[in-house]
Amino acid sequence: MTAESAFLAALRPLATDPAARGLADDAAVLPAPLGRDLVLTHDMLIEGVHFLPGDPPGDVAWKLLAVNLSDLAAKGARPLGVLMGCGLGAENAWDDAFVAGLARALDHFGVALLGGDTVAMPAGAPRALGLTALGEAAPGLAPPRSGARAGDRLWVSGTIGDAGLGLAIARGARAGPRRLLKAYRLPMPRLAAGRALAPHVHAMADVSDGLLLDTSRIAQASGLAVAIDLDAVPLSAEAVAAAGGDRAARLAAATAGDDYELLFAAPEAASAALLALKLRPGLTPIGRFAPGAGLQVHDAAGTVPLPARLGFEHGPAESPAMR
Amino acid sequence: MTAESAFLAALRPLATDPAARGLADDAAVLPAPLGRDLVLTHDMLIEGVHFLPGDPPGDVAWKLLAVNLSDLAAKGARPLGVLMGCGLGAENAWDDAFVAGLARALDHFGVALLGGDTVAMPAGAPRALGLTALGEAAPGLAPPRSGARAGDRLWVSGTIGDAGLGLAIARGARAGPRRLLKAYRLPMPRLAAGRALAPHVHAMADVSDGLLLDTSRIAQASGLAVAIDLDAVPLSAEAVAAAGGDRAARLAAATAGDDYELLFAAPEAASAALLALKLRPGLTPIGRFAPGAGLQVHDAAGTVPLPARLGFEHGPAESPAMR
Repeated sequence: MTAESAFLAALRPLATDPAARGLADDAAVLPAPLGRDLVLTHDMLIEGVHFLPGDPPGDVAWKLLAVNLSDLAAKGARPLGVLMGCGLGAENAWDDAFVAGLARALDHFGVALLGGDTVAMPAGAPRALGLTALGEAAPGLAPPRSGARAGDRLWVSGTIGDAGLGLAIARGARAGPRRLLKAYRLPMPRLAAGRALAPHVHAMADVSDGLLLDTSRIAQASGLAVAIDLDAVPLSAEAVAAAGGDRAARLAAATAGDDYELLFAAPEAASAALLALKLRPGLTPIGRFAPGAGLQVHDAAGTVPLPARLGFEHGPAESPAMR
Repeated sequence: MTAESAFLAALRPLATDPAARGLADDAAVLPAPLGRDLVLTHDMLIEGVHFLPGDPPGDVAWKLLAVNLSDLAAKGARPLGVLMGCGLGAENAWDDAFVAGLARALDHFGVALLGGDTVAMPAGAPRALGLTALGEAAPGLAPPRSGARAGDRLWVSGTIGDAGLGLAIARGARAGPRRLLKAYRLPMPRLAAGRALAPHVHAMADVSDGLLLDTSRIAQASGLAVAIDLDAVPLSAEAVAAAGGDRAARLAAATAGDDYELLFAAPEAASAALLALKLRPGLTPIGRFAPGAGLQVHDAAGTVPLPARLGFEHGPAESPAMR
């Protein structure tokens, strides 16, 4: 039995949905959700770019699923299933731990493994993982990135910057509590919040590359300017304890990325309805959209000069795992 | 601009479908096809495993799309769109030629690019490409691999073995006409034939890993034995001219793989209806299913001993590009 057929055999018990056809057919087949929109996303994780060879394989599996589900969450979608493409290395123990972690993650989010492909990478090549997530959403209601309107408030869910500190802990660059490391390794896509928020918002995205960068992308796609109150950006107690809450620490949090919180634009009039949703984690207004273009950041001390880098712009030189 | 943002900018004009949201959103959003089944598949192509660094990049793009559309064809599905994951190298000229080839292939098959992900692989790592194809089919009619019944005839579309000879030509191992090389580099998924055949067949798959191997998988999934008449396996005139039509040449054709023809089981009573479809390329009956288990091959001279390898079983040691 080749490593790939062993891997496929290990995956088969995870493919419990009849649509997966036991991972033994050319394709997955499932009824289209009646009168709904389909939402589809595909993100890759590359060893040496997005994760390190020494990272726990089960956590890599969790993150591969979570980052894709986070994209569905940002469109207010419910997951229907995933297809996975695995370019594997030669180490069977790694593969076993990866499958075990994938099983936990699929079970946690109640998501079906529908199909995919498994290949052995050439000797010495990094592992290359891809995942496609399929979801469904109310027709016409998946919020675009480009829908913000002048006067809308900018909101974010949860806290920002925990994962950035977690990465520093993972790299041995600093000490800190396990919850920060967990925020980096086991991000939690905001699926329920995304579905609850979608009817109330004009634009929504997830914070994957950095709060400032993802905010500026919403503003640019919407043809607007946006101003962020850095003091309002929600930091966790653990993050403040580890790194402080001054301007530099807040800027680091707002450019670190990997938060997988929801970032959205909503009209002022929706504010009470948003807070009445009583979402956990909570929602925080952090800025406002206005006619014009560009990103402006301020705090109690005045205008904050923008850092050279607003977030993670792709490329191994400044990838999350490596920087 | 990083190599990935340049690549993304080059892809953007290809994402003409509004569902792609200009490749600028977290996910693609499209209406679910009313009352239809969704068909989903994901296949990867790895440099050094499935293609060679020197292969024309445009042909690699064609093949990445074609092998996935072939899986949809085998389920009688019409493509709705694709998502692509590209782990790229450092060579911009390669990327440009890949995008140009992808544009031609998407246009040829009338398929929309809906989204995906682009990352730079670490220095020196092989390119890793993945593609998810989404299709739709009549509800409940996507033929499984496991549906063959005792007494069914085994049929195949087109000709078998051309791609195997084309690979030998690509590797410089033999000379031969350009049409054989083209069969290897630019396979043609049988989408129209798949849709026409689906209502008539009990089981269907595409010939990706080798006629004998893919046939034995249908028989195994269906809990049946199958017998193939090797003399009936359709070879092209070019293949016979290049390699002859004796038992050894026919066995080589039937184990080479990469044919992307349709292989299906249909009841004897459907034979006239199948031929009345007047599909181009034509259909050829090549065997029969029976109670029991296992694959048996015969020709005019009697029973043909099975070769050690029935096809491509995954793994770089015997990958299509390398063997």
